[in-house]
Amino acid sequence: MIYQPIRLAFSVSTKQLCRIPGPIRISTVRWMASPIEKLTILRKSFDGEKIDAYLLPSTDAHQSEYLAEFDFRVKFLSGFTGSNAFVLVTRDKALLWTDGRYFIQAEAQMSGDWKMMKQAVPDAITPTEWINSNMAKGSIIGFDPDIMTYDEARSMGGRLKSVGYTMKAVHGNLVDRFWKDRPSLPNKKLICLSKEETGAGVGEKLTRVREGLKGKQCTALVLLALDDIMWTLNIRGGDIEYNPLAYSILLITESDAHLFIDPAKLDDCSRSHLGNVSIHGYDDAKPFLKKYAQSLEGTSATVFVPGSTNFAIGELFESRMYQSVSPIQEMKAKKNDVELTGIRRASIRDAVALSKYLMWMEKQVMGGADLTEEAAGKKIDEMRTHEEKFVDLSFGTISAVGAHAALPHYHPSNGSELVKCTTSEVFLVDSGAHYRDGTTDVTRTIWIGGKVPAEFRRDNTLVLMAHIDMASTVFPAGINGIRLDAISRQALWKYGLDYNHGLGHGVGHFLNVHEAPGISHRRYTDSNLLHEGTVITIEPGLYMEKKWGIRIENVYELVGASVPSGASFLAFRPLTWLPIQREIIDCFLLEERHKQWLNEYHSKTLSIQKEEISKRSGDHSEVLQWLEKACAPI
Amino acid sequence: MIYQPIRLAFSVSTKQLCRIPGPIRISTVRWMASPIEKLTILRKSFDGEKIDAYLLPSTDAHQSEYLAEFDFRVKFLSGFTGSNAFVLVTRDKALLWTDGRYFIQAEAQMSGDWKMMKQAVPDAITPTEWINSNMAKGSIIGFDPDIMTYDEARSMGGRLKSVGYTMKAVHGNLVDRFWKDRPSLPNKKLICLSKEETGAGVGEKLTRVREGLKGKQCTALVLLALDDIMWTLNIRGGDIEYNPLAYSILLITESDAHLFIDPAKLDDCSRSHLGNVSIHGYDDAKPFLKKYAQSLEGTSATVFVPGSTNFAIGELFESRMYQSVSPIQEMKAKKNDVELTGIRRASIRDAVALSKYLMWMEKQVMGGADLTEEAAGKKIDEMRTHEEKFVDLSFGTISAVGAHAALPHYHPSNGSELVKCTTSEVFLVDSGAHYRDGTTDVTRTIWIGGKVPAEFRRDNTLVLMAHIDMASTVFPAGINGIRLDAISRQALWKYGLDYNHGLGHGVGHFLNVHEAPGISHRRYTDSNLLHEGTVITIEPGLYMEKKWGIRIENVYELVGASVPSGASFLAFRPLTWLPIQREIIDCFLLEERHKQWLNEYHSKTLSIQKEEISKRSGDHSEVLQWLEKACAPI
Repeated sequence: MIYQPIRLAFSVSTKQLCRIPGPIRISTVRWMASPIEKLTILRKSFDGEKIDAYLLPSTDAHQSEYLAEFDFRVKFLSGFTGSNAFVLVTRDKALLWTDGRYFIQAEAQMSGDWKMMKQAVPDAITPTEWINSNMAKGSIIGFDPDIMTYDEARSMGGRLKSVGYTMKAVHGNLVDRFWKDRPSLPNKKLICLSKEETGAGVGEKLTRVREGLKGKQCTALVLLALDDIMWTLNIRGGDIEYNPLAYSILLITESDAHLFIDPAKLDDCSRSHLGNVSIHGYDDAKPFLKKYAQSLEGTSATVFVPGSTNFAIGELFESRMYQSVSPIQEMKAKKNDVELTGIRRASIRDAVALSKYLMWMEKQVMGGADLTEEAAGKKIDEMRTHEEKFVDLSFGTISAVGAHAALPHYHPSNGSELVKCTTSEVFLVDSGAHYRDGTTDVTRTIWIGGKVPAEFRRDNTLVLMAHIDMASTVFPAGINGIRLDAISRQALWKYGLDYNHGLGHGVGHFLNVHEAPGISHRRYTDSNLLHEGTVITIEPGLYMEKKWGIRIENVYELVGASVPSGASFLAFRPLTWLPIQREIIDCFLLEERHKQWLNEYHSKTLSIQKEEISKRSGDHSEVLQWLEKACAPI
Repeated sequence: MIYQPIRLAFSVSTKQLCRIPGPIRISTVRWMASPIEKLTILRKSFDGEKIDAYLLPSTDAHQSEYLAEFDFRVKFLSGFTGSNAFVLVTRDKALLWTDGRYFIQAEAQMSGDWKMMKQAVPDAITPTEWINSNMAKGSIIGFDPDIMTYDEARSMGGRLKSVGYTMKAVHGNLVDRFWKDRPSLPNKKLICLSKEETGAGVGEKLTRVREGLKGKQCTALVLLALDDIMWTLNIRGGDIEYNPLAYSILLITESDAHLFIDPAKLDDCSRSHLGNVSIHGYDDAKPFLKKYAQSLEGTSATVFVPGSTNFAIGELFESRMYQSVSPIQEMKAKKNDVELTGIRRASIRDAVALSKYLMWMEKQVMGGADLTEEAAGKKIDEMRTHEEKFVDLSFGTISAVGAHAALPHYHPSNGSELVKCTTSEVFLVDSGAHYRDGTTDVTRTIWIGGKVPAEFRRDNTLVLMAHIDMASTVFPAGINGIRLDAISRQALWKYGLDYNHGLGHGVGHFLNVHEAPGISHRRYTDSNLLHEGTVITIEPGLYMEKKWGIRIENVYELVGASVPSGASFLAFRPLTWLPIQREIIDCFLLEERHKQWLNEYHSKTLSIQKEEISKRSGDHSEVLQWLEKACAPI
């Protein structure tokens, strides 16, 4: 599934249960209040807080990629449901910044009380520039220190200060104060993973973290990124749909570890699993950390505060802060043998389910069945649930027919999902799951029936070449992912074609489907390095508006490559072993090396799936036959 | 010539004339003072300035890539002659940070009073971290606001403040105060370029700049980058060896332009050329700009202050600053037709000189002449001076035999330049010139006599393939240069080989040999975009320690590419038309497309050079014969 530089899409949590939102001061406002009523109530709080405007980025206290409805304040306030939004409400203006994916949608969803501001276009005006040009000097701009990062607040605060404004942290979100029908958070029990499942126990991981801290001369680490916390403590949660995360905060000192989490999520088993980790309530984090920071006064202690930490927590350690990317990010990315073994197995099981699914799709479409795009998507979701160790989907399946596939982030609307799967249109399915031993993410583009326009065949072949060009690249260990992205685009560039998303993203071990490092031209961070043991997707695409969309996505592990120089180089080894439709390839475009790669990939796919199927009871002759055909050499 | 992320090498100016350095308070210190004596005198000034330590980056007030000796304070103070240095002197410690190129050299050049600190190694300690771990809280760290950029000083100051220290601007460099024998600056007259030579007059350029400022809602622009100023005013100088630059500062307002420059550099001609531009003394810049900033008080005026502006100037506009990359950078990079025509012609003349030189080298080496590496370098320098419109070399020629070529930044030392050019060693020559109509930069690697080890032949072929792979890439207009770098490395990576510098750099129009944008994995800036009309090198290399070094460098212009989709794509068109030695290529390694490219390149080289030579008087039959052979198809 494509990774976006900014969060991709919010996901509506269907599992919201019982977490009680914070104090509600104005209890009369319901969801039904009009946009202007909401703005009026928000503005009424400005005087009490001594502010002239209020900033509201669309994120949560942990800078999660996906939001629970609980945290979707921007939607409640503005009506805009896009994933990327930055709101500024002044006494007489309400502005919402978003990017090109959402220009039309934002205009349509917001009332006339709101003004949409464009991001990432030439001569775009930033919030700071807007404030500087439109607000009286000396104005005070409020923000929620829980959802703005320390970095963002400091840097925007510094810029605003230099042009005559003040940024002020307003504790307690101003929207939450009157958001009466705010959805609650789910409260699933924690899942605990054993050392046999993770390859490293909690104690061992904490020791490694502490060694790393020593190297940086730090005495403690504060973690807010939920997947970092889950990985460190070998736990998983269910607070955000498709993301096995539990809202929590973790403090690791030289001697102790303190986990702040809703105790209702724990049971005897997880308490025992967490052993020496002290458990506190989620809301106790701030007072506890404040006290902890105070206890360091007079010492030379330095605390590691990852760059994405929110302002409220970051501020506590301001005078003794070591700021950098979370050290867990790289530890988590370099999978150990147990994790890799698990992911390999999960990927093979997942691919068997997908093979059966693709065979089923062929039969349905060739048989002229009345199959909607929506039903086609639901079918694979259902088929996966039967696989061993299945826990959940890893994201909402993208099932797209024809022109829908040309929208890389297609979500059905207005009944579009009722379109039929036929032999006269392409079908793209991007889906994956969390298994207890690994997370998967696969995209296949198929066109059943063989009546394929020559132009589509060419486009599809170019995307396949882009995929193979990347998958067969050998490169120096430790380089930044941004460097590889263009290698895969050359096949498309020769035809003047390109696609507008990154090439691939890291995948967690039964954890977020998107994690660092990525292979993308979009983001450059010094920490985005490719190491042995990293699990990462390759997913080039091509999107021809109103015609078709193509994406071919596998997950790979990075393994040591054998090179004549003997230097430390890496190669991609597939984790996803699933046929790539042969009938829609223009063999004349392929170079010999592409054919070789594909034939070898298919030959291994056949043997690996056969082996997996041979372990299963029942009659699998039909899918075996289908695989033989789908994996034949070209 | 390879571009370095940090300045590449200082250049000893041999043309220093008469600029008088600033006030000298302690007049007894000469170059001969011992390192500890210098440190002692420096430390004595701490009390008067109320500081506990002093920072000294090795740069000048304009953040120039190359330093005049006049500005080489770090060398005077520490003895270290490397180009990258960041010094911190406390009351009892003297520390110098540098990168891996200089670890051995720094240790050797500095006395025991100094401690070398490593940059860009794992667990490197930054100056801020060092201060935090080693200095008493509350310490005050002084810096020269003329040579630290506003950005650097603000960001380092902010970090230090958050951990309990203060950064303090100390006006008047503390080293200059006791540097008695400080070299003076040269004082060459300005060269003025006509509209016929530049394609756009000064008035036209100022109008374009002002239009750009309007788009950013700015009322003025302050320029300190010397090449930006030269380009805007169609002038060139000679203050820094090999760089046609004159020390100056430029203020462009909505109605006026003010140039701050030593008036001794002007004559009637340049005064007339500069027309409506007001001329002030160089040292009048700060008081004038201060007054100008004061005159804006009470208005909403915003001033465009490029990110590299020094702190002293940046601070003046702090409350009304628009900070971004200089708008001149992109204007300068997109060459107009007149500039491109000039560069094409200069490159052809330059290539004819180089052809004659390569032929001469062959004859010398084959004839067993007693030719040193140094003499070989001087010969091409001398031959270039005879070419029409020659002004100067564009950098110090790198002439390297055998293992010397394995040092990408080879500079002779201890008589190493006396090594002989023979048939048993490789010869690498990286050289270029400023002509009045364009700047050149070419590297060729040759091995004369044909007795070439198979391993060298392979290495050389891989570098050639890397060059061709880049030169034949077609890519979307406007992308960031960092994205292309790896495309050219694939040929090397397959063998587990790589090189440790960027692929290429922009080249000025009779201006700096290094300018933005670059194609390199080393730097990522949002402004490093590749547009039509950009002039840029391709120069992959391979360096086998103690054996040989290889680099093949041409300059290219970026031109619109014709692609089936009709979208806006770019291609590389050669500006350098010079034979690439055919005898040292392993044709079995080349793919068909490489052979095609090379044969086409050589065929055009032959016809282009023939045409140029046909315009010249005298007998050129020998070089024509040589070219026929050197350009034959493979």
